[in-house]
Amino acid sequence: MSAALKKIVIVGAGLIGGSFALALRRAHAVEQIVGIGRSAASLQRALQLGLIDAASTALPEALQDADLVLVSVPVAQTEAVLRAAQPHLSAHTVVTDAGSIKADVVAAARRALGDRVGQFVPGHPIAGREVSGPDAAIADLYVGRKVVLTPIPENDIAVVERVAAAWRLTGAEIHHMKPEQHDAVFAAVSHLPHLLSFAMVNEMVCRPEADLLLQYAAGGFRDFTRLASSSPEMWRDISLANQQAILVELDAYIAQLGRFRGQLAARDGDAMQAMFSQAQRARDAWLQRADANAAQQKTDEDA
Amino acid sequence: MSAALKKIVIVGAGLIGGSFALALRRAHAVEQIVGIGRSAASLQRALQLGLIDAASTALPEALQDADLVLVSVPVAQTEAVLRAAQPHLSAHTVVTDAGSIKADVVAAARRALGDRVGQFVPGHPIAGREVSGPDAAIADLYVGRKVVLTPIPENDIAVVERVAAAWRLTGAEIHHMKPEQHDAVFAAVSHLPHLLSFAMVNEMVCRPEADLLLQYAAGGFRDFTRLASSSPEMWRDISLANQQAILVELDAYIAQLGRFRGQLAARDGDAMQAMFSQAQRARDAWLQRADANAAQQKTDEDA
Repeated sequence: MSAALKKIVIVGAGLIGGSFALALRRAHAVEQIVGIGRSAASLQRALQLGLIDAASTALPEALQDADLVLVSVPVAQTEAVLRAAQPHLSAHTVVTDAGSIKADVVAAARRALGDRVGQFVPGHPIAGREVSGPDAAIADLYVGRKVVLTPIPENDIAVVERVAAAWRLTGAEIHHMKPEQHDAVFAAVSHLPHLLSFAMVNEMVCRPEADLLLQYAAGGFRDFTRLASSSPEMWRDISLANQQAILVELDAYIAQLGRFRGQLAARDGDAMQAMFSQAQRARDAWLQRADANAAQQKTDEDA
Repeated sequence: MSAALKKIVIVGAGLIGGSFALALRRAHAVEQIVGIGRSAASLQRALQLGLIDAASTALPEALQDADLVLVSVPVAQTEAVLRAAQPHLSAHTVVTDAGSIKADVVAAARRALGDRVGQFVPGHPIAGREVSGPDAAIADLYVGRKVVLTPIPENDIAVVERVAAAWRLTGAEIHHMKPEQHDAVFAAVSHLPHLLSFAMVNEMVCRPEADLLLQYAAGGFRDFTRLASSSPEMWRDISLANQQAILVELDAYIAQLGRFRGQLAARDGDAMQAMFSQAQRARDAWLQRADANAAQQKTDEDA
């Protein structure tokens, strides 16, 4: 069986890029994988682990005749990477990214790539682990996970399909959204919970009685604040890049807390219970659907 | 070896009361365990599972010569239980509870028990599972967990020590606090996260695009909202019973979100990153201590 892709280039062969590489390799879908990165040690590690076949710091050579380039670097660095790559892109090379915000990345891509922006298909794999770096990469990170592509008007359908096909080979399920819609959705379901979690821990540790409080923090606190163990740099970048959508979510949430505060101040037990019940039912129904989907995907894989 | 306790009475033999019973039984610390409850089916199940030796609906008989009574019912029902028990308490019987708020329970106990309130030692085991009822009871629920006792001035030291000794036999670690201090601490580390989690899900599901949002909710959302699968009735009761301390926490948190909103609106990346970093460091240090404590307790047990 001949591989679908002759050469792919991974810019940033850490958890996301490295797992993409491993999955394509497992699918026998690629002949050569070249890694590019700022950290020589990290690239060397990716090479040792077999995530990539070659590590390169020479962009022109690395990009030559590449079928697909995956840019998996912190979102704030995407523009610089695309700008450096632009002069060396072959006409048939397709570029995609893995950033968790999209409208900002699209704007950066237009600035960096100019009339070659049609070669860039913005993407966001909804997958992660609590660990990062090349050592965290695993071949089945994307199995059964969603990858959201947010194509732009400049993309040919065939170009979008090439990116989608590569992700499908990793076991992922492809979804399409507009960049702005993507950012609004993820501001609500991902960015807001992260920021609320950081704010909760921060509120607590800035107090004189912080040690006493943390001594009694238990399992609920652990789950609620897990997101506060995420990378501060990454979340600064996401906050800035998705500022408008996050402000909308933050305001809606503060308003929601204000309504609850009013019910509590008025000792309106019925209203509070109704609110809790609605949340509980919705969360349990969501969990059931999510678990059913996961079980279905497991069955499909085993079949 | 003769058991330390001749007879204990468990009012509400579900997860909390049933696990207490199983742990004392495993420690050969009790001769007879009598269960009392509103639900005949639940009592019957507790009997089948061996959590209790006898199920009773006749309070005078059940309480006769009891060494220790554990009231493990929803906090809003504690007063009614104590009121019903009061005329039948032997002079040497000690009563404790497992409610997650304490100042309100102390006030209820004073009203219900009158001059016998010295026989009541308020307590709160910091342990739980996502499941409830007699079938969820396990003998090691309290191993290595904290039990906070909040004695009142009317308690003799010896009475407090009897309750502490029983909990120690379950493997728990005893802490003492004043009721109001307990409620302030748990408003911060437990009640607030629960309410924020309910509010987050509620905010999301009340929107027209709720289905779309939930479709993209992933692991972070799952952890952040786990608390929103808790019992609405229980959290209504806790909210009402700990209203003042929760309002203080809610206001502090809304103010904290307001500060973050200001940083985000001003695109102050440095301030946001500093906030995220402080939270991340504090959370990671807390987690390390918590895991080290858990490992130490495991070692102590194995020794």
